[in-house]
Amino acid sequence: MGKPGLRTTVFLPLLSGGAVLESNNGEVFMGIDKNEWGFRVGHLPHGERNKISDVPGVTVGHCTLADGDIQTGVTALLPHPGDVFHDKVLAACHVINGFGKTTGLVQIDELGTLETPILFTNTLSVGTVETALVKYMLERNPDICETTGSVNPVVCECNDCGLNDIRGLHVTEAHVAAALADCKADFAEGAVGAGRGMRCHGLKGGIGSASRLVELDGKSYTIGALVLSNHATFDDLIVAGTPIHELLEARIPPHEDKGSIITVLATDIPLSERQLRRLCHRALVGLSRTGSACGNGSGEIVLAFTTANRMPHYSDKALLPMEMLHDDAINPLFRAVAECVEESVLSSLLHAETVTGYHGRTVQCLSDLLKK
Amino acid sequence: MGKPGLRTTVFLPLLSGGAVLESNNGEVFMGIDKNEWGFRVGHLPHGERNKISDVPGVTVGHCTLADGDIQTGVTALLPHPGDVFHDKVLAACHVINGFGKTTGLVQIDELGTLETPILFTNTLSVGTVETALVKYMLERNPDICETTGSVNPVVCECNDCGLNDIRGLHVTEAHVAAALADCKADFAEGAVGAGRGMRCHGLKGGIGSASRLVELDGKSYTIGALVLSNHATFDDLIVAGTPIHELLEARIPPHEDKGSIITVLATDIPLSERQLRRLCHRALVGLSRTGSACGNGSGEIVLAFTTANRMPHYSDKALLPMEMLHDDAINPLFRAVAECVEESVLSSLLHAETVTGYHGRTVQCLSDLLKK
Amino acid sequence: MGKPGLRTTVFLPLLSGGAVLESNNGEVFMGIDKNEWGFRVGHLPHGERNKISDVPGVTVGHCTLADGDIQTGVTALLPHPGDVFHDKVLAACHVINGFGKTTGLVQIDELGTLETPILFTNTLSVGTVETALVKYMLERNPDICETTGSVNPVVCECNDCGLNDIRGLHVTEAHVAAALADCKADFAEGAVGAGRGMRCHGLKGGIGSASRLVELDGKSYTIGALVLSNHATFDDLIVAGTPIHELLEARIPPHEDKGSIITVLATDIPLSERQLRRLCHRALVGLSRTGSACGNGSGEIVLAFTTANRMPHYSDKALLPMEMLHDDAINPLFRAVAECVEESVLSSLLHAETVTGYHGRTVQCLSDLLKK
Amino acid sequence: MGKPGLRTTVFLPLLSGGAVLESNNGEVFMGIDKNEWGFRVGHLPHGERNKISDVPGVTVGHCTLADGDIQTGVTALLPHPGDVFHDKVLAACHVINGFGKTTGLVQIDELGTLETPILFTNTLSVGTVETALVKYMLERNPDICETTGSVNPVVCECNDCGLNDIRGLHVTEAHVAAALADCKADFAEGAVGAGRGMRCHGLKGGIGSASRLVELDGKSYTIGALVLSNHATFDDLIVAGTPIHELLEARIPPHEDKGSIITVLATDIPLSERQLRRLCHRALVGLSRTGSACGNGSGEIVLAFTTANRMPHYSDKALLPMEMLHDDAINPLFRAVAECVEESVLSSLLHAETVTGYHGRTVQCLSDLLKK
Repeated sequence: MGKPGLRTTVFLPLLSGGAVLESNNGEVFMGIDKNEWGFRVGHLPHGERNKISDVPGVTVGHCTLADGDIQTGVTALLPHPGDVFHDKVLAACHVINGFGKTTGLVQIDELGTLETPILFTNTLSVGTVETALVKYMLERNPDICETTGSVNPVVCECNDCGLNDIRGLHVTEAHVAAALADCKADFAEGAVGAGRGMRCHGLKGGIGSASRLVELDGKSYTIGALVLSNHATFDDLIVAGTPIHELLEARIPPHEDKGSIITVLATDIPLSERQLRRLCHRALVGLSRTGSACGNGSGEIVLAFTTANRMPHYSDKALLPMEMLHDDAINPLFRAVAECVEESVLSSLLHAETVTGYHGRTVQCLSDLLKK
Repeated sequence: MGKPGLRTTVFLPLLSGGAVLESNNGEVFMGIDKNEWGFRVGHLPHGERNKISDVPGVTVGHCTLADGDIQTGVTALLPHPGDVFHDKVLAACHVINGFGKTTGLVQIDELGTLETPILFTNTLSVGTVETALVKYMLERNPDICETTGSVNPVVCECNDCGLNDIRGLHVTEAHVAAALADCKADFAEGAVGAGRGMRCHGLKGGIGSASRLVELDGKSYTIGALVLSNHATFDDLIVAGTPIHELLEARIPPHEDKGSIITVLATDIPLSERQLRRLCHRALVGLSRTGSACGNGSGEIVLAFTTANRMPHYSDKALLPMEMLHDDAINPLFRAVAECVEESVLSSLLHAETVTGYHGRTVQCLSDLLKK
Repeated sequence: MGKPGLRTTVFLPLLSGGAVLESNNGEVFMGIDKNEWGFRVGHLPHGERNKISDVPGVTVGHCTLADGDIQTGVTALLPHPGDVFHDKVLAACHVINGFGKTTGLVQIDELGTLETPILFTNTLSVGTVETALVKYMLERNPDICETTGSVNPVVCECNDCGLNDIRGLHVTEAHVAAALADCKADFAEGAVGAGRGMRCHGLKGGIGSASRLVELDGKSYTIGALVLSNHATFDDLIVAGTPIHELLEARIPPHEDKGSIITVLATDIPLSERQLRRLCHRALVGLSRTGSACGNGSGEIVLAFTTANRMPHYSDKALLPMEMLHDDAINPLFRAVAECVEESVLSSLLHAETVTGYHGRTVQCLSDLLKK
Repeated sequence: MGKPGLRTTVFLPLLSGGAVLESNNGEVFMGIDKNEWGFRVGHLPHGERNKISDVPGVTVGHCTLADGDIQTGVTALLPHPGDVFHDKVLAACHVINGFGKTTGLVQIDELGTLETPILFTNTLSVGTVETALVKYMLERNPDICETTGSVNPVVCECNDCGLNDIRGLHVTEAHVAAALADCKADFAEGAVGAGRGMRCHGLKGGIGSASRLVELDGKSYTIGALVLSNHATFDDLIVAGTPIHELLEARIPPHEDKGSIITVLATDIPLSERQLRRLCHRALVGLSRTGSACGNGSGEIVLAFTTANRMPHYSDKALLPMEMLHDDAINPLFRAVAECVEESVLSSLLHAETVTGYHGRTVQCLSDLLKK
């Protein structure tokens, strides 16, 4: 045991609810009430679910593969429930560290729009998922590459080679369809979907999410984050300001500072592409607060979109009305991003279960470590 | 003489009007009617003056120093006649080749606004001009750095060391004030203001400008360019598709591919910062059409702003209405930029007079070369 | 017929060799001797083949699908004959206009290396080709994602939806393997491989290549370019300084300024990643010289690599010797890039044959147009 | 008093040495031994001085103006003791948040070299300091703009308008010369030079520095940072993991999250320009660890250079030998940057004294706050 005083302060509610920590291998794991974590990340209020889906219309779905050596999957995020190709959302991206293979960034940067769902998978399955996403878009949009231009598929990835037989290329197009079909506001976090095989700060990571509320002109708006966490080391991990490895005797196997983290930011605040890019830049503040050192091998990619400024694929008018934030009012948004990203990383850790996979390797989850 | 046939086709009206080519050293030189050049750049119609000042509200002024070894000056461009600091214009920039010292780009990139006049001078006088511009802004805005934040001065430069005793630092703050006070729609081009000592394609260059009209949603809009031309070699020069050195026996002294070109684009089309940046990227198309090879030592900087999307310095509202162009309608704007920039370079050459300056060096103007 | 005088000057040798213009649908088309085109692009000498494969070790292969509605394919470029993953080449990239889906750029930008062959295909087949390239790399490198990190596949694309049933997704992994197996120095240009269905300046485009020689420190080096041309309009086309549509009565159907152009630059000059990026920036000079206006819908992507600065995947030493060019010596390289890219676009046009494909649409080649 | 237990743990040695806290207004303040701060930042060993001058050859000098309303100054950093213009150092830069007016970044980005001392001053004095730096370079280099090209002055700034009568433009060219003449390895930190009027986390900030040692190939190398700190809020401040405002009852006046932070990184490790840029990206990790939220109004600029890869201004050879780090060995450098930047911010706070300036405003220093 480490220092019990601090530990119980930080994790008491977490530890006290033993049932919370029960989960089944390969199943959705949603037992933890974020309002009872025993700590608070930042100062801003969070939305109802404290997830990216607090931004109205945003939904997330998973297809999880959890069978022996195969511990991987697909996660899908829909920016809104409508036809995203014909009703695009303004978007931007930022590469914190480019050791990554995410597709679609070049066009987002140029045109400032997102026109497909965002998909997440393992590094070597990007091609398969891209093809599946292309087929999904072609089915729904007979005009693509027939009477109109092409489509820009966005596929994000982290490398789950530790727990998953990634070289086996086990993700199929059917898994992509399943993840897309699963999209809902009340989605699971932790070792699910693309997060199934991910390791974060040496512990079981995966999908995490959070949200924050910001008031502008007397109206409440939401900013949400979703991460696919697969980065950093245990010794670097900070939970709500506390370096965890100082609290715990429990040891975890030595590991390199490898892997990546993908961050998606969503909001219903009308922002310009430039302002969305500014939000993206603040994700690193949140990542730093959980102790990340932004290692060489970490693909740290950030995408942001707003559901409040749309760009129709077809338009009779050349000039379209938009709204933009006065930049002097943007600081609360920056803080919201930092808080959301910090909490999303922690949420991915706290929702994840221990997973045993490829070569019989096991990556312990934070909850199990705390129980020891 | 070169090949008379082609030459007279291209330059007949220019050559036939002998009076056109008369000018006095150090004086404004405006004799050439662009409509009688004998060639046409591109296909789009130009505005009334065929200058950047066809964008309503844009004005330009010069202070020219032409006295023996001192052949330099200051040019100023006002984005609109109002209070630019409190009523900023949306803006963007792009560095084609960064061998240059233009100031203010970092903040334009971040905040997407221009909040001062744009000033042009020689490379070593940037500091003096920046200080003078700061004083100009402080005088007009008692709130700067007192009750509100700082101001982002934009000063562009090219190196006129061939014709001008640039090391003598002859530009003073009074010259900046004079250029700012001189701003008008009907401004001079050629070897004036900051353009006084510049050499373009081995010939006398300097200030050039052009405009094009574009129709959107049944309404006519204007795109204008202004260049400070100081780049490229004579052997590379193409005038309206014709390589000039093939037409002429006249020789000019050997010279390196050095120097720079600054391009400012203005429009009254409501664009986002991202779209303004896209316009900036097309300046190189126009520069290539006059034969530029974009050499190592050429500081090729592009700024663009729109007078149609404004950002107030103070705002009661956090969220402000804007307009944005549908990107599918942007191609005519791209062509307008390429045409404007191509014609601006040529206009700088055709308006310039022969100048003798530092160390008794002479740089011939194109008109004089054609007369031989 | 247009103006015969100029036309025969420009194209006489091309037209006189009737046999040259013979080609078979779907077959490799290599009849044109670039030395007998009747015009010259630029001033620098070209390498032996006047192709990118003049850079020692660089090879290119194609797999062409030419069957009725299916007019597409795959092209592969090997940076050197060895193990590219374990013996990476320094590389850089640049996005001229980001309406494109090329993969792998994020990591090239961050790490400055290319570690796979470069593949080219149609827009919707990027996923399939990426998966095939991943399998190719996994087969040859058992360490990837097992004892070492992941691999960054580079797949470039243009949209061939006019001539090809692109929605049918006809490219398979076997086609990728075939293109990779076909790589050789003496490769075909024109309507082959990924270039099969491409349209360039309203005419049949596709694969084009060229090279230039540059002398540094008394030694001869090579710069080569390869393009996949699918961009711009007929009215904009300039061949060696001559606007073609002014010479010809022949009409081609109206068409939009859509499509894209991919440019790969190779050299055996030791450059830093920054300097390779500077080369990339000059591709637009060459594209502008053939008349491109860099339209909204054009994905214009440039990659550059040097075979002279390598980065081993594994290294006992942390610090490795490199060579870098003094930037004052880079201007000939910039000119070489502009000339190579200009000639590569023309070469893609002059090697291509007329192709009839999807919906019975025909895109005429330049040679056939000249014969009329 | 706040919570004495934690406070004495953290700051005991600082508090116990009363003499340490003595300083004279406007004088160099160097009493604190960084080895006795009572806390440790990070895990890597620091160099002898724990300053950027541990990188051999790097020196720093100040000229401090401290007289009533005038609380400002100039700081100079020499990359090496030789002729920086003719013996340039490889360099890179990164803009975290571009609300700033630092000059010289465009050319550093393009050419990858630093060729002048780096100067720091207040926002409105950039022009004056640039002119002074130009004169300093002209005096020492008669070839600039006479027989060779121009020079790229690098001037960094933060806005000291709270404590300093910045609108009075009190910095003169003589102050720049004084700062340059003062350069030495054993330089002062805190409220000196350009740091005189700066406020950091609501407390007195200014110049701070730190260094870390990294071993590569069996040899020890140094990374150093120097900051000009003028950013963030008191409530955000974290000292070595501890949020300070939770420990102290002492109140400071309410203040906005405004101001900026400049970071310069130096090393004697041979890196490429790309790798130096990667170091720059990690500065934000260090800033985040002291609690910065990277606010809208914060100009956060990072420059990095290596003294181990030089670029001569003149070279007989076009190709020059360099060394580059294998990127797999770069993680310790990233951690060194994060630790250096974190400690530099804290060092600026801990060395600063309380300053009273413009409008009689006082900004308290951390030491005085701790004494209450």
